[in-house]
Amino acid sequence: MRVDGRKNDELRQVSITRNFTKYAPGSVLVKFGDTKVLCTAFPEEKVPQFLRGTQEGWITAEYSMLPSSTQTRKPRDISRLKLDSRSAEIQRLIGRSLRSVTDLKMLGERTVWIDCDVLQADAGTRVASITGAYIALCDAVNDLIKKGILKENPVTDSVAAVSVGIVDGEMLTDLCYEEDSRAQVDMNVVMTGSGDIIELQLTGEKQPLKRKELDALLEMSKNAITEIIKVQLEAFRD
Amino acid sequence: MRVDGRKNDELRQVSITRNFTKYAPGSVLVKFGDTKVLCTAFPEEKVPQFLRGTQEGWITAEYSMLPSSTQTRKPRDISRLKLDSRSAEIQRLIGRSLRSVTDLKMLGERTVWIDCDVLQADAGTRVASITGAYIALCDAVNDLIKKGILKENPVTDSVAAVSVGIVDGEMLTDLCYEEDSRAQVDMNVVMTGSGDIIELQLTGEKQPLKRKELDALLEMSKNAITEIIKVQLEAFRD
Amino acid sequence: MRVDGRKNDELRQVSITRNFTKYAPGSVLVKFGDTKVLCTAFPEEKVPQFLRGTQEGWITAEYSMLPSSTQTRKPRDISRLKLDSRSAEIQRLIGRSLRSVTDLKMLGERTVWIDCDVLQADAGTRVASITGAYIALCDAVNDLIKKGILKENPVTDSVAAVSVGIVDGEMLTDLCYEEDSRAQVDMNVVMTGSGDIIELQLTGEKQPLKRKELDALLEMSKNAITEIIKVQLEAFRD
Amino acid sequence: MRVDGRKNDELRQVSITRNFTKYAPGSVLVKFGDTKVLCTAFPEEKVPQFLRGTQEGWITAEYSMLPSSTQTRKPRDISRLKLDSRSAEIQRLIGRSLRSVTDLKMLGERTVWIDCDVLQADAGTRVASITGAYIALCDAVNDLIKKGILKENPVTDSVAAVSVGIVDGEMLTDLCYEEDSRAQVDMNVVMTGSGDIIELQLTGEKQPLKRKELDALLEMSKNAITEIIKVQLEAFRD
Amino acid sequence: MRVDGRKNDELRQVSITRNFTKYAPGSVLVKFGDTKVLCTAFPEEKVPQFLRGTQEGWITAEYSMLPSSTQTRKPRDISRLKLDSRSAEIQRLIGRSLRSVTDLKMLGERTVWIDCDVLQADAGTRVASITGAYIALCDAVNDLIKKGILKENPVTDSVAAVSVGIVDGEMLTDLCYEEDSRAQVDMNVVMTGSGDIIELQLTGEKQPLKRKELDALLEMSKNAITEIIKVQLEAFRD
Amino acid sequence: MRVDGRKNDELRQVSITRNFTKYAPGSVLVKFGDTKVLCTAFPEEKVPQFLRGTQEGWITAEYSMLPSSTQTRKPRDISRLKLDSRSAEIQRLIGRSLRSVTDLKMLGERTVWIDCDVLQADAGTRVASITGAYIALCDAVNDLIKKGILKENPVTDSVAAVSVGIVDGEMLTDLCYEEDSRAQVDMNVVMTGSGDIIELQLTGEKQPLKRKELDALLEMSKNAITEIIKVQLEAFRD
Repeated sequence: MRVDGRKNDELRQVSITRNFTKYAPGSVLVKFGDTKVLCTAFPEEKVPQFLRGTQEGWITAEYSMLPSSTQTRKPRDISRLKLDSRSAEIQRLIGRSLRSVTDLKMLGERTVWIDCDVLQADAGTRVASITGAYIALCDAVNDLIKKGILKENPVTDSVAAVSVGIVDGEMLTDLCYEEDSRAQVDMNVVMTGSGDIIELQLTGEKQPLKRKELDALLEMSKNAITEIIKVQLEAFRD
Repeated sequence: MRVDGRKNDELRQVSITRNFTKYAPGSVLVKFGDTKVLCTAFPEEKVPQFLRGTQEGWITAEYSMLPSSTQTRKPRDISRLKLDSRSAEIQRLIGRSLRSVTDLKMLGERTVWIDCDVLQADAGTRVASITGAYIALCDAVNDLIKKGILKENPVTDSVAAVSVGIVDGEMLTDLCYEEDSRAQVDMNVVMTGSGDIIELQLTGEKQPLKRKELDALLEMSKNAITEIIKVQLEAFRD
Repeated sequence: MRVDGRKNDELRQVSITRNFTKYAPGSVLVKFGDTKVLCTAFPEEKVPQFLRGTQEGWITAEYSMLPSSTQTRKPRDISRLKLDSRSAEIQRLIGRSLRSVTDLKMLGERTVWIDCDVLQADAGTRVASITGAYIALCDAVNDLIKKGILKENPVTDSVAAVSVGIVDGEMLTDLCYEEDSRAQVDMNVVMTGSGDIIELQLTGEKQPLKRKELDALLEMSKNAITEIIKVQLEAFRD
Repeated sequence: MRVDGRKNDELRQVSITRNFTKYAPGSVLVKFGDTKVLCTAFPEEKVPQFLRGTQEGWITAEYSMLPSSTQTRKPRDISRLKLDSRSAEIQRLIGRSLRSVTDLKMLGERTVWIDCDVLQADAGTRVASITGAYIALCDAVNDLIKKGILKENPVTDSVAAVSVGIVDGEMLTDLCYEEDSRAQVDMNVVMTGSGDIIELQLTGEKQPLKRKELDALLEMSKNAITEIIKVQLEAFRD
Repeated sequence: MRVDGRKNDELRQVSITRNFTKYAPGSVLVKFGDTKVLCTAFPEEKVPQFLRGTQEGWITAEYSMLPSSTQTRKPRDISRLKLDSRSAEIQRLIGRSLRSVTDLKMLGERTVWIDCDVLQADAGTRVASITGAYIALCDAVNDLIKKGILKENPVTDSVAAVSVGIVDGEMLTDLCYEEDSRAQVDMNVVMTGSGDIIELQLTGEKQPLKRKELDALLEMSKNAITEIIKVQLEAFRD
Repeated sequence: MRVDGRKNDELRQVSITRNFTKYAPGSVLVKFGDTKVLCTAFPEEKVPQFLRGTQEGWITAEYSMLPSSTQTRKPRDISRLKLDSRSAEIQRLIGRSLRSVTDLKMLGERTVWIDCDVLQADAGTRVASITGAYIALCDAVNDLIKKGILKENPVTDSVAAVSVGIVDGEMLTDLCYEEDSRAQVDMNVVMTGSGDIIELQLTGEKQPLKRKELDALLEMSKNAITEIIKVQLEAFRD
């Protein structure tokens, strides 16, 4: 039995609230249990230097944790004048994940800015961010279509993510902080709606992983993502 | 009649939600209409260099706006490597306001970190921050008392704040963004529960202020703060 | 009797030296007693991004203290890679004060850079800065007129500033450092030549202020500013 | 046939030169074809704050590309005042990989600083870095043993890494830049000497990956790593 | 005849005002013609890390130009977040020059902070800085002696500096800006009171220098420094 | 006899390897004994702001030491967010030295970026950098000629550099680290192929220099540079 009473392959309560704030055309509060992330999408009619004149668009993501989102207060990046390295890594992951399901030529020469701000962190913030940011991206893109700026929807597939891991020899789905901090193996999986793998980040810092353990974790994550996609679909229905 | 149907001396709906997140012992979501700020208070058993060995404590505040909190996306401070000047000014104001109602000797050699993170900005974020941060401070201090770290409550008075201004020749209470951006005169007032002035910031960048106009604005702000204090008291009752 | 023998409502010796250095068209050394600030004004034929194409001009101020201007050496901002928060607050105040007496449309699409560098600080540096910067601005604007770049003078009123406060229960005009560091209440007032209020910053960090005390302080500051304006006028006569 | 004539599952020439420079006790030049990385290991008798007093050690890595290591000159991080995000991600990966094969308690309260400086980049710099840094770490640890600072060898297993990917539908081992820039799928695998997985980073930004493709890529990478470990062993023999 | 009517080997008017500001125990305004630099010396009872426990002291210098000190406004270092490279070079020169005439063991484990802030620049700011900073250092050291902190004077010799150069084929002493900007060769010489060379920086960016030209420039600089030392001696007499 | 068995006026083994890496058109590994510097030259079809539209080109240099190039690990600039002051000084020197032998009008409106990255430092890194960077510059310029971008060679003379100094009363050529750290006088000389002086930096921090000692050091450096130029010429012959 897990610390919060879940079965090994059970997700925490996943919930998605659209239009959480009013300025960004995509604004989603996503919860994986006690992990809460505000994911927003703001289109801008400009692209980075390397894309100017190519008629291609871009999706870029920024990830940050509020100082009060962690067990002990986390100092702000600006007070140290350095972007947190872990944040840098995560925001690159979010950006790649969303670009992989977007036709950037169809998006046209504009950028969609994705912001994932963690209000409360109980592990799994990066997978929650990807799961929520996908909805925010869709809402922002639909707003561009409604305004006549885009003709067609450049989002080509859905995307969701989950973390799985091995804790005290047990394979677990959707680790909470207490589990995550003791995990031997930690794996984040990003998949399309059709079950293909977009990103996979596996870390066995505390214990290397056998090949067949990887197979089992992949199976677990696929099942979990199927559940998460259902929550995404329900959110669209609202 | 104002843009949102209010009377000139009428506040927007002010609401205060305690325990909004779970890690900080003081965590408050404060709303002044569509302005929403997460105010948290985290005690730390350390003081800044200049207070070491003095047995006196400190309260320090940080203020920041989420990129998605404004009408057009606001770039993060860390991307420019500079703390926003307006944020610097506001966080100094919040810190002074809370210190003015706290007996720092009684607080003992520890710091209370106040974080005010604006989730959605519709003007008045600094006065909402002070109003909410006061509640977060009280909750954090009570937590210290409950844990036996503090014997007595060092908070000596309550504090609340409001903005008033002159828009198109009309004196208005609690300006929303649409009013604020057109205001000739903008005044932020911080008062104690007993109606004395802690901080007053008046800016007549677009039109200097006559002395008797100041008197009228002070009257308006005192009335408004009386209302806000009622909401604070109700929040404690919950 | 005050530490330097002044009466409660007496200013320190205020003096203004124009053309203190030779490159900036406006270059003023202003002294309020032992407080000495070099205020310069440099026009530039460019405006910030947000004003391009609007045919409106801008006035921006920067404020800094020399490392040797304070009782113990003050480390330079660049050595900490951070603009001092207090400096950030003060330079915003100086900029607003000067813009409030300037017709920015008449100034045309150019910027006037105001630099206030404190050579020696004995309290009141911000009000000395505003008082001196106004003269530097006028000299720079007159230089633009002389060169035929401007036709009319966009400066619409004069501006001066003073600090007042309550120290050991006494209301005092133009606090020196020894008084300022013990003040219960500290108030900076910026007024036009006609006696209207442009900016008012009141801080009662150590003791909240009663309403009638505010009235008395405002009266004191108005009288002091009348004296300061006389010094400004004399400076122009030279 | 690949651009450089290799078979699909063929590594580039991998070579390892120890003692490449004279100050660091571990100093290795590693080449994967035209990719050349200088990997050094410098022990320091200090640990980061969070480990003080725990009698545990730490291994930390920094990764950087020389400005002249890329096809067009890469500006230095210091000129932009920001650590490159990709470098941040890679150096975290290198650090985790080496820590996973080191008993940090046995290392004792000291840090080993790993520096991976890319002299020439032709793709695969992160896997070359890990492969070379392992040798540098071993040399530095042996130096600590020789000096009597360490009694036992805290390195518990060997570690090597390789990149594999899918280019134009073909699965390829050890991509060079020309292949890497066209890859649909890119995967970096870090394994122990015994063939277990330490880290796995898979990116299908341009095309999601089927499960059985992943299986095939894992097989390829395992074979390649077996070859690389042989080169590591030879390097030790010298 | 030179632009300002001087003979080729003639200095501009050199003047030294001690006690220019009141907080630093050494505070000197030095002028070389229109070049004006405020040089101050602040002792601090601390040394940099590398000297702790050695009972040796340190002298460190910082050099900066006020934004208004140059013909067109010079942006502040903090606005670019980078110390100006030329300033970095100059402050290292000033520090070395003063340390070369100070017995750091006799100074004891303390630092003297030298600040050279250029109020107005008309070329020669670095040599004026050294010339003035020497006086400020002496005043600060004498203050330490007067306070009983130092027993003996650790300053072992005097130091002064001058610039010489070749402009339009003419060898000139103490170049002003108009000359300096056209110079083929520019040389800064720092000498002791006894005429020995402490520092020599020669730049022939626009035209390499013949050996016998160097001899002639050295002769000129020695003569000029003899004059400057007289001014220093007079300053002490006041 | 010197620590490494050399005669007082004897250079260490100087060697120059061209085409050390493959992307920069000029890429040179230069060694002065155990001092090893990678010098590269990358042309860019752009000039700094102040040269736009002038049809003149620019040569700019950056100098950096790898963390592992020194006896104890040198922290990276980016980890302190500050360009090392000594590096700032050296890269200015390298840039001036190369510009002094280049006709910038003939170079046309383009920049040549020189990067000098020290792989191993045993004193004399700045003079090795200049000596090697000259070769890299020539190779890059010849590449521009070969590509038809330049018609004529804008490099007008050769340039080489050496350090000389006084150690324990002995005048020595090309100091190694052990000598350099004990030197009373340290002098870096940059000369053209025809023996004229381009740059001269003399530091007598530990002991002022007599005039006739300077003469002797200049003689020594001229002889040494004659030798170094021979190595440069041989390098071209390969």
